[in-house]
Amino acid sequence: MIPSPADVFRALIPPNRREPVQASAAAFAPANIALVKYWGKRDERLNLPVTSSLSVSLGKLGSDVRLCGRQGRDVVTLNGKPLPDDSSFVRRVSSYLDFCRPAAGWGFEVTARNTIPTAAGFASSASGFAALVRALDGLFGWHLDGRALSILARLGSGSASRSIFEGLVEWHAGCAADGMDSYAEPLGVEWADLRMALIVLSRAEKGIGSRAAMQRTVETSPLYAAWPATVHRDMAEMKSALQERDFTRTGAVAERNALAMHATMLAASPPVLYWQPESVRVMQKVWALRAEGVPVYFTMDAGPNVKVLYLADTEPAVREGLADWEFVKPNA
Amino acid sequence: MIPSPADVFRALIPPNRREPVQASAAAFAPANIALVKYWGKRDERLNLPVTSSLSVSLGKLGSDVRLCGRQGRDVVTLNGKPLPDDSSFVRRVSSYLDFCRPAAGWGFEVTARNTIPTAAGFASSASGFAALVRALDGLFGWHLDGRALSILARLGSGSASRSIFEGLVEWHAGCAADGMDSYAEPLGVEWADLRMALIVLSRAEKGIGSRAAMQRTVETSPLYAAWPATVHRDMAEMKSALQERDFTRTGAVAERNALAMHATMLAASPPVLYWQPESVRVMQKVWALRAEGVPVYFTMDAGPNVKVLYLADTEPAVREGLADWEFVKPNA
Repeated sequence: MIPSPADVFRALIPPNRREPVQASAAAFAPANIALVKYWGKRDERLNLPVTSSLSVSLGKLGSDVRLCGRQGRDVVTLNGKPLPDDSSFVRRVSSYLDFCRPAAGWGFEVTARNTIPTAAGFASSASGFAALVRALDGLFGWHLDGRALSILARLGSGSASRSIFEGLVEWHAGCAADGMDSYAEPLGVEWADLRMALIVLSRAEKGIGSRAAMQRTVETSPLYAAWPATVHRDMAEMKSALQERDFTRTGAVAERNALAMHATMLAASPPVLYWQPESVRVMQKVWALRAEGVPVYFTMDAGPNVKVLYLADTEPAVREGLADWEFVKPNA
Repeated sequence: MIPSPADVFRALIPPNRREPVQASAAAFAPANIALVKYWGKRDERLNLPVTSSLSVSLGKLGSDVRLCGRQGRDVVTLNGKPLPDDSSFVRRVSSYLDFCRPAAGWGFEVTARNTIPTAAGFASSASGFAALVRALDGLFGWHLDGRALSILARLGSGSASRSIFEGLVEWHAGCAADGMDSYAEPLGVEWADLRMALIVLSRAEKGIGSRAAMQRTVETSPLYAAWPATVHRDMAEMKSALQERDFTRTGAVAERNALAMHATMLAASPPVLYWQPESVRVMQKVWALRAEGVPVYFTMDAGPNVKVLYLADTEPAVREGLADWEFVKPNA
């Protein structure tokens, strides 16, 4: 019997906590940027990944979600705008909320606000679903631990499993069919001087969502066959680099892992290219800065924007080198 | 005993044809653009490829080479400029000419002229070595057949093996250690309406030569493991598409094969990115034109420039769509 998301909810939520314990609840969760990417699912329904991944959470950049119960259909407001019932976002959220309705006819009022650009490769669905799970936990008084919250967040969006935590976070791929061993947890490494900044090139919605791009890559890219072994190697080296606070190695592995992920997409049919001409210009500029002795590396997700990784004491040089673009720094 | 390039020359050139039969000889060979790429060697000395490849020759765009014997060192002139003896190009040509010197102290005067931009991804080394081999054949009166000329050209530059022929050309990977089964030959498909044009973005020399980029990819890119199978699939589909004169399939396979090649480079350490911001803009424009119904596809080699593939009757629409850039059309 293949487990469903509903089975996972039933297994994790105490049976006596199916009714709200308060009128409303609010929660925040940070966005996260992977240093070793999640790219490809082994189970589409449970969002179980092919590989483990590792990310850094973005402090106060993320999503605020406020929840109340209501009679009737769900009402979802995003960044101050009520969304149409038939929008794909509302349908995705409502399907997720189906797992926790106390009774038929029971709806939710969901008020979400992202402090980062939505759907342009800044993982707003990750922080959004993580905040939603935390708000549900408060509304229903589940008092679940981080591991259970991470599993539930994963059912909404794979990388949301990582947005349950601050700092450096590892999401274990796991191998169980029900995904109970596929959750994130803090890596246990503190690195106060590590900085990540967002170079914003476009706030436009992307042409193809990461969910569809990931699926197309797994199904059609002949290079995807080599991706799991690539991540296996990069994860081992990244963890060792982080434990040693070795910035050069951390940056180099993050950059090569991101490029390899984009490479697998490029070979999909039809190809997936999230880069804009300006993305290439930023990458080239980062390489030029490194050649000049400024230790800065980049990573990129399923969108045109570039994220840069550097250490606190080089921030003036990094900012100056990238002064042509909008530089968004999370206050981590 | 591993065969050397000198062994191959000895095996192919008749023993009684080691002296010039005329004072000078000149030859032309076309550049070629691969529709299924050559990327990676199984033998560095003999330029034996990991996979077969398939190209289209560019008519009158290519290289003219004129050869005379002289006393003393070689003198190489490229596009009207005498090259310094210690330039890497002269050393490469001289090492190659070592295989055919009638006696010690015997030099060559090599006058080469490219009708395409040198070393910016337009395969000028391919047409250059193919023309050089043809000129040597004339100077020494070897009267070798196309297969032998192709093998000798390959020893100078892998893709030169294909520039021995006009039109659609297949280079067989072969499997013999001495490379005697690794030669190009015409595919036997005529397609008068098939057009290839060069979109020139940069005539600058590239940062890393294709020989070094190929080697780095084979040695460090974890995605290269999946490349041979990718080419195997693409070769089969390309040959079938060309035999059926199926332009949509031909273009789609050419484009995906080129993107997959660039993808393997992107995952190398350090990464190899030949694209300029403008390259991305051209790719996006080609995709936009296709979305508007103009059947045009692109391919890219180890350089920033883009080559477009289309059929004769759509040329006005293709030219208009790409009017922002220099459009170089070989008179094939």
